[in-house]
Amino acid sequence: MTDGNRAYGKKKFKRSTSHFADRITADGRDGWPVEAGRYRLVISRACPWASRAVISRRLLGLEDALSMAVVDPIQDDRSWRFTLDPGDRDPVLGIRFLSEAYDAREKGYPGGVSVPAVVDVPSGQLVTNDFQQLTLDLATEWSALHRDGAPDLYPERLRDEMDDVMRAVYVDVNNGVYRAGFATDQQEYDGACTEVFRRLERLSERLAARRYLVGDTITEADIRLFTTLVRFDAVYHGHFKCNRHKLTEDPVLWAYARDLYQTPGFGDTVDFDHIKRHYYQVHTGINPTAVVPLGPDLGGWLTPHGREQLGGRPFGDGTPPGPVRAEEEVPAAGRP
Amino acid sequence: MTDGNRAYGKKKFKRSTSHFADRITADGRDGWPVEAGRYRLVISRACPWASRAVISRRLLGLEDALSMAVVDPIQDDRSWRFTLDPGDRDPVLGIRFLSEAYDAREKGYPGGVSVPAVVDVPSGQLVTNDFQQLTLDLATEWSALHRDGAPDLYPERLRDEMDDVMRAVYVDVNNGVYRAGFATDQQEYDGACTEVFRRLERLSERLAARRYLVGDTITEADIRLFTTLVRFDAVYHGHFKCNRHKLTEDPVLWAYARDLYQTPGFGDTVDFDHIKRHYYQVHTGINPTAVVPLGPDLGGWLTPHGREQLGGRPFGDGTPPGPVRAEEEVPAAGRP
Repeated sequence: MTDGNRAYGKKKFKRSTSHFADRITADGRDGWPVEAGRYRLVISRACPWASRAVISRRLLGLEDALSMAVVDPIQDDRSWRFTLDPGDRDPVLGIRFLSEAYDAREKGYPGGVSVPAVVDVPSGQLVTNDFQQLTLDLATEWSALHRDGAPDLYPERLRDEMDDVMRAVYVDVNNGVYRAGFATDQQEYDGACTEVFRRLERLSERLAARRYLVGDTITEADIRLFTTLVRFDAVYHGHFKCNRHKLTEDPVLWAYARDLYQTPGFGDTVDFDHIKRHYYQVHTGINPTAVVPLGPDLGGWLTPHGREQLGGRPFGDGTPPGPVRAEEEVPAAGRP
Repeated sequence: MTDGNRAYGKKKFKRSTSHFADRITADGRDGWPVEAGRYRLVISRACPWASRAVISRRLLGLEDALSMAVVDPIQDDRSWRFTLDPGDRDPVLGIRFLSEAYDAREKGYPGGVSVPAVVDVPSGQLVTNDFQQLTLDLATEWSALHRDGAPDLYPERLRDEMDDVMRAVYVDVNNGVYRAGFATDQQEYDGACTEVFRRLERLSERLAARRYLVGDTITEADIRLFTTLVRFDAVYHGHFKCNRHKLTEDPVLWAYARDLYQTPGFGDTVDFDHIKRHYYQVHTGINPTAVVPLGPDLGGWLTPHGREQLGGRPFGDGTPPGPVRAEEEVPAAGRP
């Protein structure tokens, strides 16, 4: 996610493409071979794009292989900061701002500083901020380091269908809410908001009789839809004006989102406090007072969803991940 | 309602008291006797305070006695305008801005121009903008001009209880949503929003087993709560950040609000288009883009409410008002 204040402007909102698109692969063809302990994943728990990687890392059991740094949900004029760490410095990379890793890679890089970012620990250089490719690579290129029982999040035989679904979800939902929220004129907003709800309606129909988006197990497609749905009522409904109805008012999508939330690896990565503070305090272009709303009531996330009745095998032939390690637990303030 | 941009500022939101508090009475003791055809009620359908008077006038059948002017929901730097009328001029008062009636009363009056306003047609002078007293006087002082079957909206024997209820509703709900929405710091917002929902919760308990707020008939107390509830999901939930939950998520208050909405004299005065455009386009201090959200879906307002089971006699010994006269009908754009 790029800096909200920079992404917001007078012109039509357009998400910047990732500038650093090197891939970390099993064969190391871009010069970055998969290697346990070599890289550090930098994320914000506020950011839906970064949260994909947090969930994938948990589901795949990559915690030992790929360490993780959590930035402060509030950027300043130097963008993402390690102000949650002792001395305001990431303990592994030794830097205070994520931009330092960008600088180490390309001095004077003029673009935005975004998360997720993967940094090469020995050199301190940014390797990639390509949020679209990153999780696919975690699922496929990093397989030698997956835990026993890790699910297949990007199954070969489902990829065509998954790619189609994920593209539609990206354009209309993941990014659609941003186009609605950062619209500077009524027509642009109307178009984006209409597309958000038209797509949600179709997804709701699709999910009425099947537990997961593609196939009968959790895949990357579910992760990508989840990271938007979990933010929907907390920030997109009000702050981004996607208010035709709340997620909680669509029985199918609300049950689907709760089902995933209650699955190990999903809800245990979500920090509603980071999410709300980031959106409402950073985007002063659309919320000048920076006041963070008290609502919505989050208690519903923990209620029974009944989706087991639809069958499905959440982890396929695999198993759920174990508990979150203590140092990565979401603070109580961020939980329902 | 005073001009939103003026009411909004760096200081804690404080509603200005009405400067012109003359009363129109049966005995004319302030120099303004009740008289059919003499006065003109100027309202905005966006404004909850003005809407009280619109509902009272309908319920009491004062349409012939007290004519009504509807201003444009969007103020400009000269405040409320008659831009919905031919030639942008009120056909009865002959003025383009409501401020002209204020000027006629007190040249150079430095305060805000607010609705509801009652103007003396012969002199063109503002008589009163005292929204708290106005409807009580319509209910009591104007009784000689009430229609046959008009309800008693301020029954003598219930006044103490009504005054208590209305005071609490005013502070915590009617005005509470404004204190939350115009708060410029977190603490001020937190306090106001908490009070809004604490009071709504108590009102919900009160209304669980009784159809109306005080007594067993519709009174002024119901009118005053209704004008806030009908705006709740459309503007207060998102724009004013009163988002603990939507009105539709409180089964009791939602049924109560629908019951009133579907009662002649209530819903037929509500223009959701005026409401949404006013709040979102005028308060650029909290909505800089002036984009008006597409939601919420308003279809629910017309669904069965089941409150007849609680008994109650909506109009007491009286009768419901007849249909809205053609020239005062809310345009289709403003209806669910």
